[in-house]
Amino acid sequence: MLGDALTGFWKAGASIRRLEVRARHKISAASLSPKWQPYIYVRMASLTEFRLDETFAVLNRTPTTLNVLLRGLPDIWVHRNEGEDTWNAFDIVGHLIFGERTDWVPRVRIILESGEGRAFDPFDRFAQAKENNGTSLEQLLDDFARLRRENLAALKTLNLQPQDLQRRGKHPALGVVTLSELLATWAVHDLTHVHQLSRVMAHQYRDAVGPWSTYLGVLRCAGHSAP
Amino acid sequence: MLGDALTGFWKAGASIRRLEVRARHKISAASLSPKWQPYIYVRMASLTEFRLDETFAVLNRTPTTLNVLLRGLPDIWVHRNEGEDTWNAFDIVGHLIFGERTDWVPRVRIILESGEGRAFDPFDRFAQAKENNGTSLEQLLDDFARLRRENLAALKTLNLQPQDLQRRGKHPALGVVTLSELLATWAVHDLTHVHQLSRVMAHQYRDAVGPWSTYLGVLRCAGHSAP
Repeated sequence: MLGDALTGFWKAGASIRRLEVRARHKISAASLSPKWQPYIYVRMASLTEFRLDETFAVLNRTPTTLNVLLRGLPDIWVHRNEGEDTWNAFDIVGHLIFGERTDWVPRVRIILESGEGRAFDPFDRFAQAKENNGTSLEQLLDDFARLRRENLAALKTLNLQPQDLQRRGKHPALGVVTLSELLATWAVHDLTHVHQLSRVMAHQYRDAVGPWSTYLGVLRCAGHSAP
Repeated sequence: MLGDALTGFWKAGASIRRLEVRARHKISAASLSPKWQPYIYVRMASLTEFRLDETFAVLNRTPTTLNVLLRGLPDIWVHRNEGEDTWNAFDIVGHLIFGERTDWVPRVRIILESGEGRAFDPFDRFAQAKENNGTSLEQLLDDFARLRRENLAALKTLNLQPQDLQRRGKHPALGVVTLSELLATWAVHDLTHVHQLSRVMAHQYRDAVGPWSTYLGVLRCAGHSAP
């Protein structure tokens, strides 16, 4: 019966977090059908935090967010960085584009096709420096929006099921990872770069704010983002 | 002659940074008319970083940025915070609204009307908790956009001149501040809360990303933002 109750949760958009509630009520995992047992046993912490439609909601919004934040901004906000070997807005959008081309969906396919049998190709975090010479920021924003749209459409055609999300792949440095972790990371990677961008922009006014710098946490962010 | 050359710089949108160029070329301040001398002497670091149209460009974009990032997002991204006594998206937008109502433009007016003779009213950073009970996030986003639009329009009618930007006011805790510092802080305050919001959102997936958390700097941000 519990198995039946769970069957519909994915399409209905109910949260995997419900499993956590059931776990708290001490429903034994053995009372679930074998199909559902992995969702109790494997990586409980991850499962309680991951839901595909929530991930899509972030991934969908990032290109528009960057577009309204950056398009048409004066040079000070888009050409300047935080000093030598740091990134400006061009580098950040270029990096996101490179991820769309070579990282996220290609890695989803590797997991689905080869599992742990084939490690992901390493991600070149500096590729955009070679690729984006002479491109306008407006062009980069357009490219990012188009590629993200195409990638999310491609992902939807895969029609991922709950059991797919626990399929495993092999990261060249981190070892075993799951498909749900890859998709969650895609969204948080967007947020890391929004976080970085707001810091890079604020940095340009670090002196202009005078004594208020004490109150402005973004000016004390130590650039911890892996770029 | 140099004085003449400088006269038009403000309306033409030329950068105060040009003064820095002139300074590097060792043009003595004495060769400037008295009207322009303060721009060499006073707070050079600030002046080189501050330009009113650049500040407006950020202030103009923040409501739209938050709108496309937040409107319609699933609950996980807008209702959750980083733990006890931390803020969620409602608190952040509510705080920005309260700033529009009581802080930025009212302080501009205090500087222009009373200078250092009257300290600013302290800013209640927790007022939104009392005010926003039961309001939808969509309503808050609409309110913020409207208030920001009205405030920027009010600021434009003041027709601030370069000399106005160096007028001084008195902050209740920080002491003497200038009008340009207040306006720069308004923009960086926006960026601090975009920075905070991306961190609060990423925090909800801190477990879901699995081993990738090592690479995601936003997850290591220590919540340094003064909220």
